[in-house]
Amino acid sequence: MDYNFFMKEALKEAFKAYNINEVPIGCVIVHNDKIISKGYNKRNSEKNALKHAEIIAIDKACKIIGDWRLEGCTLFVTVEPCPMCAGAILQSRIDTVVFGAKNSKAGCCGSILNILDNNSFNHKVNIVEGVMVEDCSILMKQFFKDLRRKDN
Amino acid sequence: MDYNFFMKEALKEAFKAYNINEVPIGCVIVHNDKIISKGYNKRNSEKNALKHAEIIAIDKACKIIGDWRLEGCTLFVTVEPCPMCAGAILQSRIDTVVFGAKNSKAGCCGSILNILDNNSFNHKVNIVEGVMVEDCSILMKQFFKDLRRKDN
Repeated sequence: MDYNFFMKEALKEAFKAYNINEVPIGCVIVHNDKIISKGYNKRNSEKNALKHAEIIAIDKACKIIGDWRLEGCTLFVTVEPCPMCAGAILQSRIDTVVFGAKNSKAGCCGSILNILDNNSFNHKVNIVEGVMVEDCSILMKQFFKDLRRKDN
Repeated sequence: MDYNFFMKEALKEAFKAYNINEVPIGCVIVHNDKIISKGYNKRNSEKNALKHAEIIAIDKACKIIGDWRLEGCTLFVTVEPCPMCAGAILQSRIDTVVFGAKNSKAGCCGSILNILDNNSFNHKVNIVEGVMVEDCSILMKQFFKDLRRKDN
């Protein structure tokens, strides 16, 4: 699987979030080498705590696959998933998560907790990290730089 | 706050799940001593991994409050939340979670992990457990007993 190709698609989604002043995180879900769903963070614009990129993409993927089980799917996301999104990935039985930048403040795929690889849960998710990490990180840094400028 | 009163309302939701052969978990969200949203597990019937009782109730509550922040809210749920739901509770900045039965297989409010009380995250959620634990547990046990009978 061409990780960079799909991460570029996730980055396009992250740019959509950036352009509406949302924390720039984007996601695509791949099944049989095809993108079946996409999502970008809309928490502020939709005034809804659930509207993270991954949740939006998982919701669409379940509708497309017609099952709560997304077995055989790979989720690409520009930034390491938070506890809610890592939990949703686990619940939907996605095979593999590929992420770009680590999230030291909320990441639950190894940074703070590892929800995807815990013997106590009945499913484990493979983790691939650091794909296009520079591009994913720069976008986040630019967003927070813009935010500080607006605050001053 | 009358914990038993609101847990009985969550149990009514759990019975709705039981009646459609879903794992019987129900939830209500309370703000200013009034129930603002309800939810019950619909994962199988909606073929969607996100359709846990708590996620459905949080989604509705955000729409009613008009904010992704559910500050001042208390979430009542019959069974200890899983990682996804505990993460969504954290993300929505709910003040307090009140649950009935522990979930030794997926509970993330103390059983396997404690997502709601971790110094690394930027929010903490108060936890009250064991409210109407017998009623909440009996319903779950009955569901799994029925399921085993159907399997035989």
